Amino acid sequence: MKTAKVLYGGSGDSADILWLTGIKIHDPFYSFIVDGKVCALLNALEIGRARKNSKIEVFYDLNSISGSAGVKKNQCASEILAGILKKARVKLLEVPSDFPALEFLRLKNLGFQVEVVDGEFFPERAVKNRCEVSEIIKANTVAAAGFALVQQILESSKIEKGILFFEGKPLTSEFLRSEIEKLSSAMGACAENTIAAAGDLACDPHEVGRGKIRADSLIVVDIFPRLVSSGYFGDMTRTFLKGTPSESQVSLVETVMLAHDEAIKKVRSGITGSEVHAAVEEIFEDSGYRTYCRKGAWEGFIHSTGHGLGLDVHEFPSLSPRCNRNLEAGNVVTIEPGLYYRGVGACRIEDNVLIRKSGGAKILSEYHYEWVVD
Amino acid sequence: MKTAKVLYGGSGDSADILWLTGIKIHDPFYSFIVDGKVCALLNALEIGRARKNSKIEVFYDLNSISGSAGVKKNQCASEILAGILKKARVKLLEVPSDFPALEFLRLKNLGFQVEVVDGEFFPERAVKNRCEVSEIIKANTVAAAGFALVQQILESSKIEKGILFFEGKPLTSEFLRSEIEKLSSAMGACAENTIAAAGDLACDPHEVGRGKIRADSLIVVDIFPRLVSSGYFGDMTRTFLKGTPSESQVSLVETVMLAHDEAIKKVRSGITGSEVHAAVEEIFEDSGYRTYCRKGAWEGFIHSTGHGLGLDVHEFPSLSPRCNRNLEAGNVVTIEPGLYYRGVGACRIEDNVLIRKSGGAKILSEYHYEWVVD
Repeated sequence: MKTAKVLYGGSGDSADILWLTGIKIHDPFYSFIVDGKVCALLNALEIGRARKNSKIEVFYDLNSISGSAGVKKNQCASEILAGILKKARVKLLEVPSDFPALEFLRLKNLGFQVEVVDGEFFPERAVKNRCEVSEIIKANTVAAAGFALVQQILESSKIEKGILFFEGKPLTSEFLRSEIEKLSSAMGACAENTIAAAGDLACDPHEVGRGKIRADSLIVVDIFPRLVSSGYFGDMTRTFLKGTPSESQVSLVETVMLAHDEAIKKVRSGITGSEVHAAVEEIFEDSGYRTYCRKGAWEGFIHSTGHGLGLDVHEFPSLSPRCNRNLEAGNVVTIEPGLYYRGVGACRIEDNVLIRKSGGAKILSEYHYEWVVD
Repeated sequence: MKTAKVLYGGSGDSADILWLTGIKIHDPFYSFIVDGKVCALLNALEIGRARKNSKIEVFYDLNSISGSAGVKKNQCASEILAGILKKARVKLLEVPSDFPALEFLRLKNLGFQVEVVDGEFFPERAVKNRCEVSEIIKANTVAAAGFALVQQILESSKIEKGILFFEGKPLTSEFLRSEIEKLSSAMGACAENTIAAAGDLACDPHEVGRGKIRADSLIVVDIFPRLVSSGYFGDMTRTFLKGTPSESQVSLVETVMLAHDEAIKKVRSGITGSEVHAAVEEIFEDSGYRTYCRKGAWEGFIHSTGHGLGLDVHEFPSLSPRCNRNLEAGNVVTIEPGLYYRGVGACRIEDNVLIRKSGGAKILSEYHYEWVVD
């Protein structure tokens, strides 16, 4: 049966659509592959610049077909698409798991068999080419610049009554995040939801951080800037502490560092994500760091070891217990073990690696691991 | 039949989910309304901070229910949700039009009747409260600061052989956009896809602009910054020209300004979006500015007059030919007529207004309309 792959959405929200079309279009539109060609149904507002600068090969002008400009004819886009696909004798449509339910029903009602693909829609996205790898490295230089800035600020900060002061004012998570995001912007990247969380707050791994930062507390800084030009992400985490660490903080950080190094040694073509994750779990358990739920809050190693990285900040393949597929050359994944215990604090150390054809992985992110700032 | 509203997705990508839950969670999760209460099914990674700081009233811990942490159990989230909903005797699920097709099928297979809502899922989102209006005003001060910066740069620029030079270098669209985005970031907002397009390039209304900027050419600057803290958007456009405008440029800008003023006068509670749009079309047609397709490219007035603004940059209600619903008090819409002709250039002027209970609209965006920079 003749098949087309069909997507519907804006390329700002869908990494699949951005990857396929190579152009940022905010409002939802139909993109599809028929006879091996990348096609799109676009309105008057977008078609001009898409013709000049995108990976789209065949253009359908929504306004010419429907006979007017100035109108977003979302309602009949599915009908126009149906006409195009029927002319090409397409019967079966493959759509991604996040395909909008309304368009799914419309296409079914228009007489197509519609199959929702569970899992990756473009498995080839997980294998990066040289160009994509270099974009990820570039995005990571932005993250690294953020760490350098945080370190400078911590170095210049004074401790008064257990609180950090920078340029005469209490140093806050909000200030650190804002400085990191300004710098990212100046370097051509958009860093959103940057994490600079200290003490027990950082024990919620996705808490971005709030309020004054105390001396002698672990500060988790997680920066994932997206390059404005290409849309590729970097994703790095370092943990800092200004002052003097306690024994339990030293042990926590050293154990995470050990797990980080071990995971990087372990990750290679042919191993599964779950095997890498299990190796990290084993190190934590052997070192006495257990994972459990206390008073409704989880502590210990409470997330997966890593995830794919590219046009989406979380993509295939994953380094988690359920990921039993072999990693392959060209995969780019994060390695980010972490430990979270209220009272002691949190530590996460994250780098990105490229799986190579032979040998181990190549690190795509560079920043040192010194964590105690005097 | 007992009904629940059900959503699935990350609140970074879905304004509905962000509006409902009041918390930014990147990875997809189930949020739903049962018995008038906002509920969410969250994993160990997110539940802690969501308990502290969100609009969610009832929490379900994905990891406690499924018995482990460290795992993203996307695959069984729909099954866990089904258990919760069946216990509450829910039979019918209402889901939004962009609900992921895969989850739609899973919930159907789990025995629910699932209705996809065509149009707004939360019509109440279109009526803004005082707090939301003040966020939009705040976001617009960021846009206005961007215009002030552009104007300063244009004022300091020199003209050499028809090209603008700023601080000894040719002034480019890329530079203007980057300066605007850095400033936005410093003001606590993320401005992405900012437009600073000049000359014929600006005739594609969503072209962000590229290359050197020429003297005597119209420069369309469209800034829509999103406040990092709350997620609300501002959205403003001004058109500038450095040098001496031609007669046809003057006439173009004056006509757009006239349409802009007329639309703001016209927009009020009880009128439809299509009536406001028609008024703008009439002014353009009466002034001899026609809309047509030439060599596959549309020219004239090639987009709608405006759109709702809030947690999404394009939301309900729309000021377009097909929008036959009455505007009502509390709506916030953009007013952004524009004209696009290759050879002459493009002009768009955009402000945001709040529809009031009585009287006309209140302008939520402030920046002057002087467009010629000496």
